[in-house]
Amino acid sequence: MDANIVLLPGDGIGPEIIEQGQLVLEAVAKRFGHSFQFTSCPMGGNAIDSHGTPLPDETLAACRKADAILLGAVGGPKWDDPNAKTRPEAGLLSLRKELQLFANLRPIKPYKQLIDASPLKREIIEGTDILFLRELTGGIYFGDSGVKPHASGEEAYSMMVYNTEEVARIVRLAAKAAQLRSGRVTSVDKANVLEVSRLWRRVAAQVMADEFPDIQYDVVLVDAMAMHLISRPRDFDVVVTGNMFGDILTDEGSMLPGSLGMLPSASLGEAGPGLYEPIHGSAPDIASQGIANPLATILAAAMALHHSLGLTEEAAAIDAAVEAVLDAGHRTADIAAGGKCLSTEQMGAAVLAVLG
Amino acid sequence: MDANIVLLPGDGIGPEIIEQGQLVLEAVAKRFGHSFQFTSCPMGGNAIDSHGTPLPDETLAACRKADAILLGAVGGPKWDDPNAKTRPEAGLLSLRKELQLFANLRPIKPYKQLIDASPLKREIIEGTDILFLRELTGGIYFGDSGVKPHASGEEAYSMMVYNTEEVARIVRLAAKAAQLRSGRVTSVDKANVLEVSRLWRRVAAQVMADEFPDIQYDVVLVDAMAMHLISRPRDFDVVVTGNMFGDILTDEGSMLPGSLGMLPSASLGEAGPGLYEPIHGSAPDIASQGIANPLATILAAAMALHHSLGLTEEAAAIDAAVEAVLDAGHRTADIAAGGKCLSTEQMGAAVLAVLG
Ligand SMILES: CC(C)[C@H](C(=O)O)[C@@H](O)C(=O)O
Ligand SMILES: CC(C)[C@H](C(=O)O)[C@@H](O)C(=O)O
Repeated sequence: MDANIVLLPGDGIGPEIIEQGQLVLEAVAKRFGHSFQFTSCPMGGNAIDSHGTPLPDETLAACRKADAILLGAVGGPKWDDPNAKTRPEAGLLSLRKELQLFANLRPIKPYKQLIDASPLKREIIEGTDILFLRELTGGIYFGDSGVKPHASGEEAYSMMVYNTEEVARIVRLAAKAAQLRSGRVTSVDKANVLEVSRLWRRVAAQVMADEFPDIQYDVVLVDAMAMHLISRPRDFDVVVTGNMFGDILTDEGSMLPGSLGMLPSASLGEAGPGLYEPIHGSAPDIASQGIANPLATILAAAMALHHSLGLTEEAAAIDAAVEAVLDAGHRTADIAAGGKCLSTEQMGAAVLAVLG
Repeated sequence: MDANIVLLPGDGIGPEIIEQGQLVLEAVAKRFGHSFQFTSCPMGGNAIDSHGTPLPDETLAACRKADAILLGAVGGPKWDDPNAKTRPEAGLLSLRKELQLFANLRPIKPYKQLIDASPLKREIIEGTDILFLRELTGGIYFGDSGVKPHASGEEAYSMMVYNTEEVARIVRLAAKAAQLRSGRVTSVDKANVLEVSRLWRRVAAQVMADEFPDIQYDVVLVDAMAMHLISRPRDFDVVVTGNMFGDILTDEGSMLPGSLGMLPSASLGEAGPGLYEPIHGSAPDIASQGIANPLATILAAAMALHHSLGLTEEAAAIDAAVEAVLDAGHRTADIAAGGKCLSTEQMGAAVLAVLG
């Protein structure tokens, strides 16, 4: 097949890891007889520097026409001034909103080869396999907000808003994902306190009852979920929640495997291209040293093949190649536990060698 | 001294554990020559049953006149119907608001005797000593909220609101607490996305700079904090945050010691009585079996002596007694790790025996 892939290398280690992601995609194209065109566009801090905005119009236009988008990471101390006119994150938030990427998928499944790196005891973490679905274009991230004078100085507000359709479509996606897994969906809210969560809970229950009667369904409060994730992560299959709760819980969950550098994520819309990225940040402290772990980006590329291009065999080949390099004992610094380390390029090359 | 202590036994295991809390307070009164009057009032599900409301007027009136309030726990399946007119939690929320208990203090410090019960590896959890300060009467818990018709069905919102004074007073309390500890304050927000968090961050920075220049101060985003709590909990001293973020993070933190039944919390206002409680729930599944762990309630009673009555020596005596019973190997079922268990009463008696 022909596919048009937009690369958004971003800031910090972004360009280094995206380079490896592209090489892996090219190897897959060659092996399976596809043709991928790559376009690299500025986004994030680098785009602020070059275009005065974190998401230039040309970048957005290119993304709209893409079949899939592979993002490195954005941000860094250079653009961290809270009084700055705009910030790298704003580019990411606009991109999500503009492309209507309402569903963020984050698999949390520790690699058995790295399980000793988990901060959790082996008996707690072993066997964990969670797929988070976080709503990504609604909630308090995009609700009305403001500041006004107040007797004591100022008063500020941010509104958490959801409507029936926004909840229904993400819950539907969660249920469909569960059909391909162990068939269980957990919806997380704070319905004992928040009106907006009570709507979330009503709609979720309705969708599950009407459309997915065979999927096992339960609800958990967000505070309780923050506990369960640590004490009994194995008990969950698909977990669906709103934007803010998802931001916190998926990051909490990302610590469980003990190897942040191995976790990809996908942001999907109803139609149009998906956005794929490693969940780790731009790690400015190790940028340009050639030591960043490219595996999360490579796994994100696999998710792109799977979800946006429907190339499941190709995606599986990448996943298997990553397993193989781990089995062979290859490690970058972040997962080396003091052992011998490969560079970013060497790790990429190890994956390419397996892919053949 | 004379003190008037209101007991709110609540639901589930509440009455059993409050009984032990009271016995311990009586023992302290006797040993140190104080006189405590106890008044027990309905609150929570039991109050819904007896008075049709989770916080009857008489209970609130008694609380207002108290020097300190000791709460068991509220809630249970009986009152869980989402369509019910009122729910046990509503009583707790009203009590916080009515008494202006804006600061929730939650120490997270694992007992060395129980450290193997932590889901975290020993090398991660050992040495952890965090004091959370959660804002408790503002934010999205008490902001405006509503539901209205929407093209797709309904739309609901809940508003997260903070003003300068609300942020300033909790940050001030956090800084004062830090002065008595390692002198470090971390403020947690989501200022890269939320307007209300940007106000929080501005005010916090101002208060720290103007009033506490000697306290080491930093800010962490809520998603990052959810990660750090698991991966490097030792790095934090006093952590201050808003109501919703605090709800999630303190519950996440409560898992770290691996012994939920050992954790107390205090809710304090500018003036008036504080509210003290174990952080665990009403555990309806083990209610009336006499096996609940009373130690968190006993430790909450110690916090009451310390914070509301200024009886620091007496509070320390209770803390020491709890250490002593743990040292002696006494365990209730929740912390027994399969070993021999004491009943609720036996554990209370063990503490009383040390207190003499
Ligand atoms: C960078 C930030 C705006 C973003 C978010 O909060 O959504 C990030 O934390 C994430 O989870 O992708
Ligand atoms: C019971 C509930 C309303 C409450 C809250 O969310 O504040 C509880 O979770 C807590 O943390 O005390």
